[in-house]
Parts: sequence; structure tokens; C-alpha cells
Amino acid sequence: MIFDVFGTVVNWRDSIIAEVSKSATEHGMPDGDWGRFADEWRAWYGKSTRELSSGDGPWRLVDEIHREKLDVLLEEYGLSEIMNEEAKQHLNRAWHRLDGWPDSPGGLRRLKSKYIIATASNGNLALLVNMAKHADLPWDAVMSPDVYGAYKPSPKVYNNAAKLLGLNTEQVMMVAAHVGDLEAASRQGLATGFVYRPFERGSENPVEMPDTSSFDVSATDFDDMANQLGCA
Amino acid sequence: MIFDVFGTVVNWRDSIIAEVSKSATEHGMPDGDWGRFADEWRAWYGKSTRELSSGDGPWRLVDEIHREKLDVLLEEYGLSEIMNEEAKQHLNRAWHRLDGWPDSPGGLRRLKSKYIIATASNGNLALLVNMAKHADLPWDAVMSPDVYGAYKPSPKVYNNAAKLLGLNTEQVMMVAAHVGDLEAASRQGLATGFVYRPFERGSENPVEMPDTSSFDVSATDFDDMANQLGCA
Repeated sequence: MIFDVFGTVVNWRDSIIAEVSKSATEHGMPDGDWGRFADEWRAWYGKSTRELSSGDGPWRLVDEIHREKLDVLLEEYGLSEIMNEEAKQHLNRAWHRLDGWPDSPGGLRRLKSKYIIATASNGNLALLVNMAKHADLPWDAVMSPDVYGAYKPSPKVYNNAAKLLGLNTEQVMMVAAHVGDLEAASRQGLATGFVYRPFERGSENPVEMPDTSSFDVSATDFDDMANQLGCA
Repeated sequence: MIFDVFGTVVNWRDSIIAEVSKSATEHGMPDGDWGRFADEWRAWYGKSTRELSSGDGPWRLVDEIHREKLDVLLEEYGLSEIMNEEAKQHLNRAWHRLDGWPDSPGGLRRLKSKYIIATASNGNLALLVNMAKHADLPWDAVMSPDVYGAYKPSPKVYNNAAKLLGLNTEQVMMVAAHVGDLEAASRQGLATGFVYRPFERGSENPVEMPDTSSFDVSATDFDDMANQLGCA
């Protein structure tokens, strides 16, 4: 089983809001629309990784993509001058310290008892390894664009994941909260597991349940998925 | 901390002898010098990965290198005709099912509580992931030649390991039971941790304790290493 991570396994938005708010407050700026800050930061990641997935532009890791946008946002929100380089680097690595959804550590352990569980994220390897330690995510293997040589939804990611694990694509299930990721995996022959994460965009902005009829499994969280897959 | 695996973390020789003996007995051939079989199989791996580390010959994974030699050995030991393809594939994957040294699972967990622990082995990723599940090795990251793009002792392996983890080489310690591996890592700026595995070549053929004065840490096993590094 290979997993999307941002949104599917970890609650990036609330984690980023908390980190930005903490850092801004420490620098004397307690008030700000940190939800918008988080959303804009995330949107830049989305745009940049989509470009990379189609082979456009120079190769960059997500740590660098995050930093590009962070510098723009800090300027825009009046934080650039009052934060030193060390504080900026620390804040950029907030993406290494995202918290899991409440069911993630336990649910993944149950899935791990029966299956190999690995990442298929667009985050870079260092980010994913540090996040796993922070959020207690018990991956069997951490795989990333710097390992795959490609960004999702490039077909290369899904094919290389199977190849690296010594499996055929039909023996691998892609797990994600995002329909596009699952559809791209399905086109390469992978099985698909949907997990519903209604609050990825904030509790005030719930994501509607999509049509999941074409997916092999559809679950409300990782415990539900473990139950459906017969894990202890 | 990045770790050599064969010999350093797992007891390849006794595991392979047990698997070859079991398979041969099942096929009606209970007697054979399976220690010599294991040593010859391992020697071919050594020769092949040394060639690959210097960039000679076509790129192959260890699973393929093992299979090349297995076919030769089965022929030589009279097993080739009496084993079917499925049995041969199963035996080739004995390298995915090696047992850890007794201190490996517990000692690695203690080291993991304080440090990132990852593999820097010449085994391929699938082999190392399957072995980790079999032998209960709690890696934070599994890295391999199909990730590094090189074989030890190529400098690329040590440098790419640090780069993938987002660290400078001086922030990484190479851990191995083999002096040559540690010396190659040290030349790239890594710290070095020696662990003494006297019985890697069999209990009847103990390895002499080398001069470890140039290494940062020298330990009798992973528990001793965890003690020396102040791990809980």
C-alpha cells in the first residue's frame, strides 16, 4: 500500500496555521489571517508540483518550493524584516512537523501488520522522514520524488513505486483522500483506496464526499480501512 | 545514522545455510556443504557489487546478482534439475528473509529513539523492505543502490545518503562491522561507528577484532552502541 501524505495522513492546514501563528506571535505580530497564509503557501506547492509532474521547469525539491513562497508571504504579511534567517528556516521546516490525523498512527500500524506501507508523496525524503518521526508514522519505506525521479501525478511515480518494491502494479494499492491521485494510479494498474478527510481545507470549509464507486476501497479513516481489509 | 546491513545487522550466513539446507532436504538431498554454498553465493555478490561500485558492467540489482550465482550453484550441487522455477525463486529470496543478530531489533529501537536510522546497504530496496518486516528492523528510511544510484564503496552512496536526509556528511554516522565501509565513509566526512560481529563468517571461523582506534565509536553490539551514545 502506498500513501499520499499531505491531507491523507497529516492535517497540514491546522499544523501550518499553528506554526505560523506561533512564530508571528513570538515576533510581536499576534494577529493575522494565518488560514489564508497557509492556503496560499499550499497553493504555490500545488502549482509548482503540477509543473514538475509534467516535466516543466528545473528540478526542485519541496523544501525549496516551500521556501520560495515563504519569502514572498513573509514580505506580504510584514514579517520578513523582523524574522532572522534561522527563524525563517525553522518556519519553512514546519512542513516536516505536521501532525497526523488522530487515526493515522494507530490505523497505519494495523495496516502495516498485514501489508507493506510506504509513501508516495510529493514531499522530499528528508521532509517525510522527519515528519514520520514527529507524527509517529510507522512507514516500511519512505519514497519521494528524489527517489522516484518524478512528481505525482506522473505515471512514473506509480510505476516506480511498484518496481522499487519488487511488485507488479496490480499488487499495489494507492491510498489517498484525493480523487485525481487515485485516478492517475488506476490508469497504471494500481488498486485504489479512498479515505475521506472532510476537514483538509479547515473545519469551516468541509470537502464534499466525492463519488467513490470506481475505487476498490472507500473508508472514513484508516481504522475503517484496516477493518475492511481484515487487519488485526 | 546509516547502517550497513549484511553482516552488520543481519546474520546472513546462518540464515542462508538454514534456507538452503531446508530447500535441499525438501527436494531429497539432505546432505551437502551448505556453509560452502553460502560462502560462494556471498563471494559472487561481493565481486559483483565491487564491479558495480566502480561503474563497470551493466546496472543490476542484488536480486539479479543473487539469481545468476544461484543457478550456477544449484547446477554444481545437483539441485538444478530437481527444483522447479517457483522453488528457485523462493530460495533466491532467502536474502529477503535473513535473521537479525539478537541485539538488532532492540538495539536499533534504542538508537532510533534519539537518531534517524536508515540503511546504506548494497541490497535492493525490495529486499531490504521485506527483510525489515521479517527481522523486525525499525528503519526510519530504507535506502539502497536503486535509490542512491550507486553501490558502496562509491563516494556517491555516502554523499547521497546525507543529501537525501537533508544533512551535511559530518552530521551522519556510518555504522558497519566492516573497516573498508567505514574508511570509505570517513573519506566523505561522515562519522564512523564500528560494531564487532565476530561470527559473520561462522562460529567456527571468528573474525579477529580489527584496529578501531580511528573510528568515532567502537561497540560490541547495538545495545553497547546505544549506551555509548546516551540512548534511553
